[in-house]
Amino acid sequence: MTGFEDLGYARPDTDREARMGVPEVVYGPGKTVEQIVGVVRSLLAANDGPVLVTRLEPDAAAAVAAQVPGGTYDRVARLLVWRPATGREFRLVVASAGTSDQPVAAEAAAVAAALGLDVHELRDVGVAGLHRLLAETGELQAADAVVCVAGMEGALPSVVGGLVGCPVIAVPTSVGYGAVLEGVTPLLAMLSSCASGVVVVNIDSGFGAAMAAHRMALRLAQR
Amino acid sequence: MTGFEDLGYARPDTDREARMGVPEVVYGPGKTVEQIVGVVRSLLAANDGPVLVTRLEPDAAAAVAAQVPGGTYDRVARLLVWRPATGREFRLVVASAGTSDQPVAAEAAAVAAALGLDVHELRDVGVAGLHRLLAETGELQAADAVVCVAGMEGALPSVVGGLVGCPVIAVPTSVGYGAVLEGVTPLLAMLSSCASGVVVVNIDSGFGAAMAAHRMALRLAQR
Amino acid sequence: MTGFEDLGYARPDTDREARMGVPEVVYGPGKTVEQIVGVVRSLLAANDGPVLVTRLEPDAAAAVAAQVPGGTYDRVARLLVWRPATGREFRLVVASAGTSDQPVAAEAAAVAAALGLDVHELRDVGVAGLHRLLAETGELQAADAVVCVAGMEGALPSVVGGLVGCPVIAVPTSVGYGAVLEGVTPLLAMLSSCASGVVVVNIDSGFGAAMAAHRMALRLAQR
Amino acid sequence: MTGFEDLGYARPDTDREARMGVPEVVYGPGKTVEQIVGVVRSLLAANDGPVLVTRLEPDAAAAVAAQVPGGTYDRVARLLVWRPATGREFRLVVASAGTSDQPVAAEAAAVAAALGLDVHELRDVGVAGLHRLLAETGELQAADAVVCVAGMEGALPSVVGGLVGCPVIAVPTSVGYGAVLEGVTPLLAMLSSCASGVVVVNIDSGFGAAMAAHRMALRLAQR
Amino acid sequence: MTGFEDLGYARPDTDREARMGVPEVVYGPGKTVEQIVGVVRSLLAANDGPVLVTRLEPDAAAAVAAQVPGGTYDRVARLLVWRPATGREFRLVVASAGTSDQPVAAEAAAVAAALGLDVHELRDVGVAGLHRLLAETGELQAADAVVCVAGMEGALPSVVGGLVGCPVIAVPTSVGYGAVLEGVTPLLAMLSSCASGVVVVNIDSGFGAAMAAHRMALRLAQR
Amino acid sequence: MTGFEDLGYARPDTDREARMGVPEVVYGPGKTVEQIVGVVRSLLAANDGPVLVTRLEPDAAAAVAAQVPGGTYDRVARLLVWRPATGREFRLVVASAGTSDQPVAAEAAAVAAALGLDVHELRDVGVAGLHRLLAETGELQAADAVVCVAGMEGALPSVVGGLVGCPVIAVPTSVGYGAVLEGVTPLLAMLSSCASGVVVVNIDSGFGAAMAAHRMALRLAQR
Amino acid sequence: MTGFEDLGYARPDTDREARMGVPEVVYGPGKTVEQIVGVVRSLLAANDGPVLVTRLEPDAAAAVAAQVPGGTYDRVARLLVWRPATGREFRLVVASAGTSDQPVAAEAAAVAAALGLDVHELRDVGVAGLHRLLAETGELQAADAVVCVAGMEGALPSVVGGLVGCPVIAVPTSVGYGAVLEGVTPLLAMLSSCASGVVVVNIDSGFGAAMAAHRMALRLAQR
Amino acid sequence: MTGFEDLGYARPDTDREARMGVPEVVYGPGKTVEQIVGVVRSLLAANDGPVLVTRLEPDAAAAVAAQVPGGTYDRVARLLVWRPATGREFRLVVASAGTSDQPVAAEAAAVAAALGLDVHELRDVGVAGLHRLLAETGELQAADAVVCVAGMEGALPSVVGGLVGCPVIAVPTSVGYGAVLEGVTPLLAMLSSCASGVVVVNIDSGFGAAMAAHRMALRLAQR
Repeated sequence: MTGFEDLGYARPDTDREARMGVPEVVYGPGKTVEQIVGVVRSLLAANDGPVLVTRLEPDAAAAVAAQVPGGTYDRVARLLVWRPATGREFRLVVASAGTSDQPVAAEAAAVAAALGLDVHELRDVGVAGLHRLLAETGELQAADAVVCVAGMEGALPSVVGGLVGCPVIAVPTSVGYGAVLEGVTPLLAMLSSCASGVVVVNIDSGFGAAMAAHRMALRLAQR
Repeated sequence: MTGFEDLGYARPDTDREARMGVPEVVYGPGKTVEQIVGVVRSLLAANDGPVLVTRLEPDAAAAVAAQVPGGTYDRVARLLVWRPATGREFRLVVASAGTSDQPVAAEAAAVAAALGLDVHELRDVGVAGLHRLLAETGELQAADAVVCVAGMEGALPSVVGGLVGCPVIAVPTSVGYGAVLEGVTPLLAMLSSCASGVVVVNIDSGFGAAMAAHRMALRLAQR
Repeated sequence: MTGFEDLGYARPDTDREARMGVPEVVYGPGKTVEQIVGVVRSLLAANDGPVLVTRLEPDAAAAVAAQVPGGTYDRVARLLVWRPATGREFRLVVASAGTSDQPVAAEAAAVAAALGLDVHELRDVGVAGLHRLLAETGELQAADAVVCVAGMEGALPSVVGGLVGCPVIAVPTSVGYGAVLEGVTPLLAMLSSCASGVVVVNIDSGFGAAMAAHRMALRLAQR
Repeated sequence: MTGFEDLGYARPDTDREARMGVPEVVYGPGKTVEQIVGVVRSLLAANDGPVLVTRLEPDAAAAVAAQVPGGTYDRVARLLVWRPATGREFRLVVASAGTSDQPVAAEAAAVAAALGLDVHELRDVGVAGLHRLLAETGELQAADAVVCVAGMEGALPSVVGGLVGCPVIAVPTSVGYGAVLEGVTPLLAMLSSCASGVVVVNIDSGFGAAMAAHRMALRLAQR
Repeated sequence: MTGFEDLGYARPDTDREARMGVPEVVYGPGKTVEQIVGVVRSLLAANDGPVLVTRLEPDAAAAVAAQVPGGTYDRVARLLVWRPATGREFRLVVASAGTSDQPVAAEAAAVAAALGLDVHELRDVGVAGLHRLLAETGELQAADAVVCVAGMEGALPSVVGGLVGCPVIAVPTSVGYGAVLEGVTPLLAMLSSCASGVVVVNIDSGFGAAMAAHRMALRLAQR
Repeated sequence: MTGFEDLGYARPDTDREARMGVPEVVYGPGKTVEQIVGVVRSLLAANDGPVLVTRLEPDAAAAVAAQVPGGTYDRVARLLVWRPATGREFRLVVASAGTSDQPVAAEAAAVAAALGLDVHELRDVGVAGLHRLLAETGELQAADAVVCVAGMEGALPSVVGGLVGCPVIAVPTSVGYGAVLEGVTPLLAMLSSCASGVVVVNIDSGFGAAMAAHRMALRLAQR
Repeated sequence: MTGFEDLGYARPDTDREARMGVPEVVYGPGKTVEQIVGVVRSLLAANDGPVLVTRLEPDAAAAVAAQVPGGTYDRVARLLVWRPATGREFRLVVASAGTSDQPVAAEAAAVAAALGLDVHELRDVGVAGLHRLLAETGELQAADAVVCVAGMEGALPSVVGGLVGCPVIAVPTSVGYGAVLEGVTPLLAMLSSCASGVVVVNIDSGFGAAMAAHRMALRLAQR
Repeated sequence: MTGFEDLGYARPDTDREARMGVPEVVYGPGKTVEQIVGVVRSLLAANDGPVLVTRLEPDAAAAVAAQVPGGTYDRVARLLVWRPATGREFRLVVASAGTSDQPVAAEAAAVAAALGLDVHELRDVGVAGLHRLLAETGELQAADAVVCVAGMEGALPSVVGGLVGCPVIAVPTSVGYGAVLEGVTPLLAMLSSCASGVVVVNIDSGFGAAMAAHRMALRLAQR
C-alpha cells in the first residue's frame, strides 16, 4: 500500500486523512475539470471525511458537480464540498475588518464549517471605529481561536491579540490600493504585530486560516 | 482600577495576566537598565506568573539581575526569567534545520519552558538529509504542536506539515547569505507552504512561536 | 538682496523665516563642525527666530556649542537649539507606542517645543493593551494635532485617527526586526490606514512631524 | 446606544460625525449596490452632514442613485454625494503637476468641496516648466493648505513646500511607467522631500488628502 | 562568411549549431508571424539540427506551420518543432511538485525531447506528501540529471538534491498567490537551497532547464 | 509675457523651444483627444519647430490627426508628428538586442528622426551571438552617440560601451519574463555597468533616449 | 544503521558520501570551534573522501586545525580541507570579471580542486574590454564546464554562454555599490540571460558553483 | 599585440586609450596595494594620458603613492591621479543639492578636472529654496553639460532639466534616511523625471557622471 493513487497527471494523497484528520483538499486553479473530477473521485473513494475544492469559479464548479453528485457550492467562498463534517466542539470566530474583506472571510468560514467547526462571523469591525469591535469583546473571549481578516494596514489582529488569550490567526487581504501593495503591507504588518503570539498565513488565504484552526481543533479533540 | 501602572517612560500592562494567562513580556532592546528594572518590578508586584525579558545582552542582564533578585539568565536564548512556570500538559517539539539556527530555536524553547510547557528539541534535521528528520517521525507525531525553525529556503515546515496533524508554527531565520535576504526568503517561502494550515511568525522570532504555543496550550487547559 | 548667503560650501536660506515663519533648520549628518558653525552663525545673524541643528551627536554638539554660545543640547532628541520660541497657542500631543520609540518621539517633542508649541507627551500607549490608550481619550481629543510615533506594525495612528477629529501625523519608526524592514512596514501600514485623513512623514522623522505641526500652527495663528 | 448600526454585512459608524465632524465616508470598491444603498441610508438617517461614496464607477453610481434620491455624481472624481456641506472658511489649493494627474486631483477637489471647503485648482504646474508654477506664487501663498498631486518623480511638493508656510499635503499618483513603479517612486520621493514638514498620503488618494484638509479645517473652525 | 544572416528585422545566428550543438531557438513572444517564418526558414536552411519556436500561442503556431511545412506543435508546452533529434543517451527526469506546475514541466520535457534527450516525467510529487516522492527514489537515482519544477515555497529541489548525486536543475514557477510573488519566492528559495550544488533557471523557464540539460548531455557525448 | 498658455486643463510651455531647442513634447496617455488637439494647436501656433505626441494609440492618433492637419503617424513607434525637423549633423546609432525590443528602438529612432538627427538602426545584435555585433564595430565607432536598447539582462550597453568612445545611452526594456521583473532587472544592470560613463533612461523610454541625444546634438550645433 | 550521528547540537549526515559522492561539507558561520571540531571528526571517521569547512575566518581555522591535524587552510578562499581528492578527469574553467571578484572565484576554485577537479582560472576578463576575454576562447571551449563569476551588471555568463556549448554556471557577486544592490542585480541579470541554458547559484557562492560542477563530474565519471 | 597585459591577478586594458580617449580607470575597493601599484604601472607605461584610481582611502592612497611617484591625492574625492590632462574646451557645471552631497559632487568634479574638462561647482542649490538655484540660471545655461547631484527626493535634475537645453546628467546620492532607501529613491525619481532627456548614472557615482561628460567632450573635440 503506497498511500497515494497515481492518476498520471496527479497523485492524490490517500493517506493524508490518517495523518492529518482530513483528506487532501484540492486547489482548483490551474487544473482542468477532468483533472478535478478524477482527483475528487479518488479522494471520495479512499477516505471517509469531507472532500473540498477551493477557489473554483462558478462555471467550473457546475461542470464538476454535474459529474460528481452530492457536492454543494458556495459562490462567495468559491468552495465546492462533498460530505461536510459536523459537530466538532471548537468555537471559531472569524472577524473581518471591512465589507470588502468578506470574500476572504467567507472562505475561512466556509472551509472551517465544512470541516465541522462551530463558526461565528463578526463583520466590519475595523479599528478606525473601535466601539464596533469592543462591543464584541465577550464574543471574542469565548472563542477557541479567532481568525482576523484585514487588508489595508492590517491592524485588527494586533488589537484582538491584546483582548484575548486564545490563538489569533491573522489573514492579510489584498483589499486597498497603492501602498497596500496587493496585500504585502498588511502581511508584513501582521508579522510585525506588537501583540505577542499572533500567527499569520498567506495573503487572501482564508483556506490557510481554516486549516490552521482545524489543526488546533484536532489536537483538542484528542485530549 | 486602570489595568496599568504609569511609570512615565512606560505603562506596564498589569491586567494582561488576567486576559492572556501570562504577564506582559518585556522586550529588551532600546530600553535602559533602569527602565527594565522598573518595568520588571511593576510586573512582579502586580502579577503571580512568570516575568520574562527577551533579547537581553549579557551585560545588561547582569545589571538587571543585580537589582532584581531571583532572575535566571539563559545566555544562548538571551532570556532573563523570574518565577518560571511549571507543569502545564502541552508537549511542544522545537525542530531546527541547521546548527546555525540554534539561537532562535533556543529562544523558542527557553520562553516556552519558562511558561511551563513541556519542550523537546530536535536539532539539525534539515531537509537535505531527510533520513535525519524521518528518524524522528514518532517524536513529531506525539507533539501537541511543532515549532519549525529554519533559514535558507525554509523548507522544513512544509515537510513537517505533511507528516503531522497538529499545529505547525514556522519560524524563519536570518541564517544564510545573498538570496536569503536576511530571512525574507524563508519567511515568504513558509507563508507559501504547500502544506496546508502552517502558520508563520516574524523572522528570528523564537519568542513569537513560543507565545503562539502558549495561546494554544491555554485553550487546551481550559477544556 | 538675494535671500541667501553664499558661504561656498553652503547657501543658508536667509529668506526662509519670512516665507515659512521659522528660519532654515540645519540637518547635522554629513556636515563638519566648521560647516555647522558657519551656517548657524549666518542664520542667527539674518533671522530673529529659533535656530536648530538636528541629529547631532554629543561630541559634535559640544564642539559647535563651544564656538556659538547660547545653544542648548537635548541628548535624547539629539537637538541643538538657540533662541527657542515660546508661547504659541497650539496644543500638540505626541503619543508613542512603545518605550523603544522614545528617541523619535523625543525629537518630535523637542523640535516642536523649540518652535514654541505647547507639547504633551503620552508614552507606551501601543494598541496591544488598548486600555492604556483609551484612558487618555480626553487628552487626545483636546489636542490641536496628534503626532503618533510607532514602529512594528504601526497601528497606533489608525486607532487614534478614529478617536479624534483633529489632524493626525503618523511617524513610523525603525523599531523592531525582521518583517519590520527597518521601518518600511509601519511606513506602508500608516499610508494604508483605514482611518481617513491620517498623514505620514518619513521613517524616524520626529523632525518632519514637528515641522508639519508648525505649518498647521502657523496657519491657525494667522486667523 | 452603541454608536453603530449592525446591518449584518456592515456596521455603519453612526457616531463618527460626533467624533470627527463628518459622517463615515463609504469606500465603493468591493461592495455590492445593495450594500452601498443600505449603508448610505443608515448614514443619512443617523447623521446631519454630507454622505459620500468614493471610487464608484458610473453604472454602480446610477444604480445607487436610483434607489437613494438626492445624490449627485461626479464622473471624473468618481464621487457620489448627498447633502454637500457649504460655507466653511478654509481656502484649499489643489495643485497638480500634469494633465494625466487630473483624476486624482479631481477626487481631492470634489471631496473637499463636498465637505464645504473653498477649493481652488491649479493644473499642469509641473516643475519642468517652473515659470508655470511661479506665476501662481500669490495664489499658493494665500492658501490655508495646499494639496500637491504629482506622479513620475513627484517633485512638486518639494518646490511648493519651499514657497509656502502653510501645510502641504502631497499625493503621489501612479501616472508614468517603468521606474515610476505604479506610484511607489513619487510616494518615496515625497516622503524624502527636502522641504521640511511636507506630509504624504497614499498613492492616488485624492480622498485622503481632502480628509486631511478637513481635519485641519475642523480645528481652525473650533478656534 | 559572417555566421549570421541579416534579415533586417533579425539576424539568425547560423553559426550557433557549430558552437553549441543545436541551432538557435526562436523565442516567440513579440515577433510577428512573418518574422517567425523568416527566421525559421533561415535556420532550417543553414543548419541540420532541430529548429524550435517556444511560447507560441496556438493561433500563431497554426499560421507559422501553414507556411513552413513539417512542424509539430505541442499545445501544452506551446512548442513548435521541425526536425526533432533522437537517440542521445542522456536520461533526464522532469519532476514537478503540483498539477498546476504541469505547463512549465511540459515545456522542459518537450524541449528536451525535441533535442533528443531521454525524458521521464514524475508529476505531483510535492513535499507535503513525501511518500509520493520517496516512492520514486530509484527513478531519481537512475537519472543523468533531474529537473525539479515547483511553485509556492519551491522546496522540491532541496529534497531531491539530498537524494541524488547527479545535477539538479531547479525551475521556479509562478504558481500560487500572495506571498509567492509571481514566482519570486520559489526562485529565491531555490537559490538559497540547503542542498549543495543545486542550480537555478528563470521563473517558468522550462526551456532554460532543458537547454541546461542539453549542455550537460553535449559534454557527456563528447567523452 | 508668461511663457505658457493657460488652457484650463493644461498649460503648454510655449517658451520651451527657446530654452531647449525644441517645443514641448506631448505625452499621450491619460489625455483626451480634445485635450491633445488643444495642446498641439497651442504648440504649433507658438513655436516653429516639430510638434510630437508620443505613446498614442492608432485610434486616438486618427482622431487627433483628423482635427489637426499635417500630422504623420508611425504605428510601430506610436508617434504622431507635425513639422518634422531635418538636416542636423548628428549621427545616432540605435542598436537593439532582440527582435522583441523593436518597438522601443523604433520610438527612439522615430523621435530622433523627427527632431532632425541622422539615425541608423542596428537590429538583433544581442550579446549571446557576439559576432553579429562585432560585425558592426565600424558603424558603431562612426556614431556621435549610440542608443542601446535591451531587455532581459541588459548587457548590450556594457559591451558597446567598451567598443566606442562616444556617449552611450542605455534603454532597458520590459522584454522577458520572471526575473526580468518587467524591465527593472536590465535597468539596474545598466546602471551597474562596468563600462564607464554609460548613462541610463527609464524602462521602455525610447523617447527619453532620443531627447538625451537631442540635448547632445544641440550642444554640438552651438559649437 | 541510521545514516547519521547524533551529536546533540548537530547530526552529521554520514550517509551522504554514498548518495552524493562526497561527504557533507561543513558551513562555518554560526558554529563554535567545538561544534566544528566535533562534526569534522565525525565526518572524517565515517567517510573516506575529502572533508571541507567553508567560510571559516583565519582565527577559527587555526583553532580547529590545532585540534584536528592534517587540515590545510586557504586564506583567500577561507576554506579548511582534510584529505583533498585528486585526479578526476573534469576540466573546470573559473572565469572572473574583475579583480574584486577574486575571493568568490577563489572559493569556487579551491573547493573544486579539493574535490579533485582539474581547475583553470581566468581573471579580469570582464566584458567592457572584450578582447581580454576573446583571447581565451580556446581555453573556454576546451572546458567541461565554465564557472562565470561577476558582480555589477553580471554580463559575463551571457557572453561566455554564447561562445561555448558546455554547461555555464553563473555566480553573481556582491561587488559594486548602489544599484548593484549587494549582488541582487547581477543575480537577476544572470537569471534573465539571453544565452540559453545558463544556470545560476546564490550570490557570492563560489561553493555552490563548485558543487554543481562536482555533480556534473560525478555523472561523467559514471559513464 | 593583444591590447592588454596579463598580470595574473589583473589584465590592464592597454588598448582603451585608443578606443575611448582615456586610459582604463582603476576602481580601488577590493584590490590590494600591490595590485593597484601593478595595474597603475602597467597603465602609465602603455598609455600617454591621465591615470586615475577612484574610491581610494587615505592610507591605501599614501601606500600606493609612495611606490608610484607623481601621483596627487584628493581626500574629499578619494581620487589618486597621475598625469592629469588639461585644456579641453568643455564647460561642465557640477550642481549639488545639499552640503551632505559634497563628497559625490567632489568626485565628479575631481575626475572631470583630471580628464581636462573645465569644471564649475554650484553647491547647496536644492529645490526647497528655489531662489538659490534661480540665481545661477546664467551659469547653468552657459554649460556644455550639467551634472546634478542630489539625495533625498532627487528633484534637482528635473528643475535644471527644464532650465537648460544641454545634456543633464543626474547622480543620485545615498544622503538621507528611511524612505530614501540608501539612494534608491532619488535614483528612481531621476529616472522618472518629467524633464525630458535627463540621463542617470549609478547611486553616488560621481565618477560615472564625469566619464559620461568625458564621452560628450570627446565627441565635441572630434568635430
